[in-house]
Amino acid sequence: MVLMDEPLGTDVPQGFIRLRGTIAYDGEKFAGWGMQPERRTVQGDLEEVFARLMRTDRLVITCAGRTDAGVHSVGQVFHIDVPEDRYPGRKDMMFKLNAILSEDLAVTDIDVAPDGFDARFSALSRSYRYLINDGVRNPVTRRQIYNYGWALDVALMVEAGKYLLGLHDFSAFCKQKEFATTIREVQQLDIYRDDDGVIHFDITADAFCYSMVRAIVGALVDIGAGRREPSWIETYLAGGAKVPAVFVAPALGLTFMKVNYPSDDQLAARILETKHSRDGSR
Amino acid sequence: MVLMDEPLGTDVPQGFIRLRGTIAYDGEKFAGWGMQPERRTVQGDLEEVFARLMRTDRLVITCAGRTDAGVHSVGQVFHIDVPEDRYPGRKDMMFKLNAILSEDLAVTDIDVAPDGFDARFSALSRSYRYLINDGVRNPVTRRQIYNYGWALDVALMVEAGKYLLGLHDFSAFCKQKEFATTIREVQQLDIYRDDDGVIHFDITADAFCYSMVRAIVGALVDIGAGRREPSWIETYLAGGAKVPAVFVAPALGLTFMKVNYPSDDQLAARILETKHSRDGSR
Repeated sequence: MVLMDEPLGTDVPQGFIRLRGTIAYDGEKFAGWGMQPERRTVQGDLEEVFARLMRTDRLVITCAGRTDAGVHSVGQVFHIDVPEDRYPGRKDMMFKLNAILSEDLAVTDIDVAPDGFDARFSALSRSYRYLINDGVRNPVTRRQIYNYGWALDVALMVEAGKYLLGLHDFSAFCKQKEFATTIREVQQLDIYRDDDGVIHFDITADAFCYSMVRAIVGALVDIGAGRREPSWIETYLAGGAKVPAVFVAPALGLTFMKVNYPSDDQLAARILETKHSRDGSR
Repeated sequence: MVLMDEPLGTDVPQGFIRLRGTIAYDGEKFAGWGMQPERRTVQGDLEEVFARLMRTDRLVITCAGRTDAGVHSVGQVFHIDVPEDRYPGRKDMMFKLNAILSEDLAVTDIDVAPDGFDARFSALSRSYRYLINDGVRNPVTRRQIYNYGWALDVALMVEAGKYLLGLHDFSAFCKQKEFATTIREVQQLDIYRDDDGVIHFDITADAFCYSMVRAIVGALVDIGAGRREPSWIETYLAGGAKVPAVFVAPALGLTFMKVNYPSDDQLAARILETKHSRDGSR
């Protein structure tokens, strides 16, 4: 399913070139990635700045994975088609963008995209990180690390996490949208405590549905706190959307880390595959 | 020199017990540690909460090292004398304090202080950390890591840092206060780039004067950016307060890390030594 406000695939209009950029943002003051009337969004801010710099009407930006309100990014990827004769080159483009963008938004890399690149449809997978402090609350990092007031057992969460790996219908962890598939493949889920005692949930999947990472972390937290057995998550996952919602961990602890793309010569093939699978069986 | 609003040394009033606490804060919304009329300060918030919990008039809090406006803490130490019969014990005290304190302030440890303990006068040294990102600005960590828009050469800063080690008159790096000594001993200064590319300035001294860490980091940054030779800092240091002020790095990048105290049986001796040296030759 392709949303109507996004450009369809790889077609770059005549006289335009496609740029590929990486963007970091502090999600606190954004109502998420996607444009919404009367709300500040990452897409809205970026499109406005590009239009201003390129002296054009709206230029539509496509990202690899739309983030929810409050979610941060250090590795979100986007593409945008800009008039070729107005592109000032990589270094100037970076400088000009970051001089205008607000302090909670920064383009960390930008360049002409390889042929056939589409930020969304070329992506093989997306990686997110969720951070929890289960010790005494830390005021300094409270906007990026969720202060959870209960000691968590990491080993129990690691055990439970194994049930989530692989291809499943994650509808139990997704806010439902009509017609949208909730089948996803969790390719990696690393849960560990770092040297500062902060618990990391590093998760990679082909794609995520709305609130999926936060609902997964919320379920794991219930297990880590001893309120449920690790094996409960298997039953919960199998129950699908019919079972009552779990605790959804707050957005502030979540950061979009990176997007994995195939090598440049595989980009076009990947797009066809993604579009086929999203229109069809998953 | 003893400031008049602080209790003098180790005397705990009859019927009171002295508590030793550690406090973490996000400095952004505080006008620093010390009480100021009409401004929000860490001391003001803490004293208010203690008075409320202890159902008393003002209880005066003494910290190990007053922090400037905007400076964070993970390891600031304080002492406070509270009515013995109203002290609810360590665990309850922690819980009650943190339930009332604002989200940008947390007591991370509290207990009855060892005999003769004084948060300020017992301290052997204080440790601070300053963090700089000299790559593309990072919006997510911008409140704790100073985004400096120029690549810095760490090796040059390490070289310059060596001139600062040891006992010196740091008046070139201090905002002048009448009658206050500016002779300090920098015991440790580690400058390095971590795995994420963030530059750390870890500095320990017997004590610091107002804005000293930030002025030192500012001077080192000028050297790291290639605007001055490493050896310039020696001349600058020797010049004292008469030379023009250097760049003072912004407060947001600075965090009070910890206080080093002698073992419990050396506390009383340490207080006498500190008071003597501050009243007298340094």
